[in-house]
Amino acid sequence: MTAPFADRLIESVRRFDTPLCVGLDPFADKIPAFFGNARDDTQAVLKFGAALIDIAAKHCGVLKPQLGLFEQFGEMGYAVARMLCEHAHAQGMIVILDAKRGDIGTTAEGYARATLGPKPGFAADCVTVNPYMGKDTLEPFVTMAQRENKGVAVLVRTSNPGAGDVQDLQVGGAPVWRRVAEMLAPETQRLLGASNWSGLMAVAGATYPEEARSLREAMPHALFLVPGYGAQGASAADAVAGFVASGKGLEGGVVNSSRGVSYPAAAQAATTFADWRAAINDAMAQAAAELRAATTR
Amino acid sequence: MTAPFADRLIESVRRFDTPLCVGLDPFADKIPAFFGNARDDTQAVLKFGAALIDIAAKHCGVLKPQLGLFEQFGEMGYAVARMLCEHAHAQGMIVILDAKRGDIGTTAEGYARATLGPKPGFAADCVTVNPYMGKDTLEPFVTMAQRENKGVAVLVRTSNPGAGDVQDLQVGGAPVWRRVAEMLAPETQRLLGASNWSGLMAVAGATYPEEARSLREAMPHALFLVPGYGAQGASAADAVAGFVASGKGLEGGVVNSSRGVSYPAAAQAATTFADWRAAINDAMAQAAAELRAATTR
Repeated sequence: MTAPFADRLIESVRRFDTPLCVGLDPFADKIPAFFGNARDDTQAVLKFGAALIDIAAKHCGVLKPQLGLFEQFGEMGYAVARMLCEHAHAQGMIVILDAKRGDIGTTAEGYARATLGPKPGFAADCVTVNPYMGKDTLEPFVTMAQRENKGVAVLVRTSNPGAGDVQDLQVGGAPVWRRVAEMLAPETQRLLGASNWSGLMAVAGATYPEEARSLREAMPHALFLVPGYGAQGASAADAVAGFVASGKGLEGGVVNSSRGVSYPAAAQAATTFADWRAAINDAMAQAAAELRAATTR
Repeated sequence: MTAPFADRLIESVRRFDTPLCVGLDPFADKIPAFFGNARDDTQAVLKFGAALIDIAAKHCGVLKPQLGLFEQFGEMGYAVARMLCEHAHAQGMIVILDAKRGDIGTTAEGYARATLGPKPGFAADCVTVNPYMGKDTLEPFVTMAQRENKGVAVLVRTSNPGAGDVQDLQVGGAPVWRRVAEMLAPETQRLLGASNWSGLMAVAGATYPEEARSLREAMPHALFLVPGYGAQGASAADAVAGFVASGKGLEGGVVNSSRGVSYPAAAQAATTFADWRAAINDAMAQAAAELRAATTR
């Protein structure tokens, strides 16, 4: 019997002693040529992704494939994303599928099956979803997560420059994102683990540390999925602003790094697989260590 | 040279004299057995979809495949959705891909390529997107739509029971969905056709006719994509509440029917392809006629 997702996630963070989550973002024009030409061969994307996962699994326990960047390669890219989820599982990693889905009733059930369900689904451990359409549209994901010990990460406060356009609109003295957090808070109980953390995660952009603290207040049990660290400009300290004191430091979620650990300058300059692997290994070790330091008291 | 999406859409509505848009929603347990067993054979989904499209093309000019219901069949389902978009194009139909995507920067570009872009993309004419993450996350879709004469349909006011959870939060005397509409209104200029309609569409749930009228006020040029008619309970009159007087009646978008025209009782009871086809043909003819009547003065 699998443990609740929240317990599996926090156990993995504790084991690696870092909240690092490696983002898997395939860009055709950045994948080194020795993997093949990703522009017209999805095998290159598969090889690149598998190689990244093999290195990532040594530094942290969580992988976040960005589904949109696989879908740009069509159905073969979609298939490659699923194969890479399998590969990450085989390497012992937890997979948070970044799909940002959201739809009504039966369609939401379809997306829940597609992302969290077993083959032909991705069998991901957690999926990102968009709350704009309302609580009933999240329900099929939470129901499946509850039944299968999986997680659901709801976009609350995102990390992009325009995040505030809708999320910061003021509703009775508080922004929309805070109202969304308040709406979700009672639901966190349904995915609560023995760790007292919930697998109903909140996406809390690292580029807005103040908001992360307010979000923690509104959702004390929610594990955070924090994007925006590294390439998007947020520091390790900003990234863990919503974490809380635990036995040995700060905890409360995972911090994603995608471009920073997948396409560092040294890796882009590498002309051999060995040089590339060493550069990726260095970048991941550094990100893991930075986040370890930021969560150690 | 293709005409702007808005002009192509409204011309199609005028030609068929009905705003009907047929929704393509594959449910494994509702696809008749004579197409095959959709539970473990996506060929059945392909055959069912192609047969529906062949009938739909006689009654209206617009098809809306619901991508989530294809994704539940894995990468093969994803591929079938793309093939059916091709088939609809071959039958002269306009395809609005209901994907409800939304993500930041480069990922949004990936989704825009995946949905609107040529093979390996879906080459859809229009795609539905979610505005929660802000205007910058819609930009890659609008940019591609502007360049390629395509459309973008933004979720503004959806048709589901919980739509109000976020969309109805009050922001300075107006709901969030109205603020979203006001944010989008200036952008409609970018996809404006010679018809004076814009391919920056607004999703305006038929189950909320009052809201549709207010939305029309905020976005006078936006073509509406109206879900919720038929199986979701809204009448034809409700569905066209946001339409405006044109030369010969009311116009301003398309009204989707999925379950009502794909799984009517008579079709579910059919045991032969001929009986099924006749039942689907009747249901589509009736929906087209009902909406024709509702838009005729």
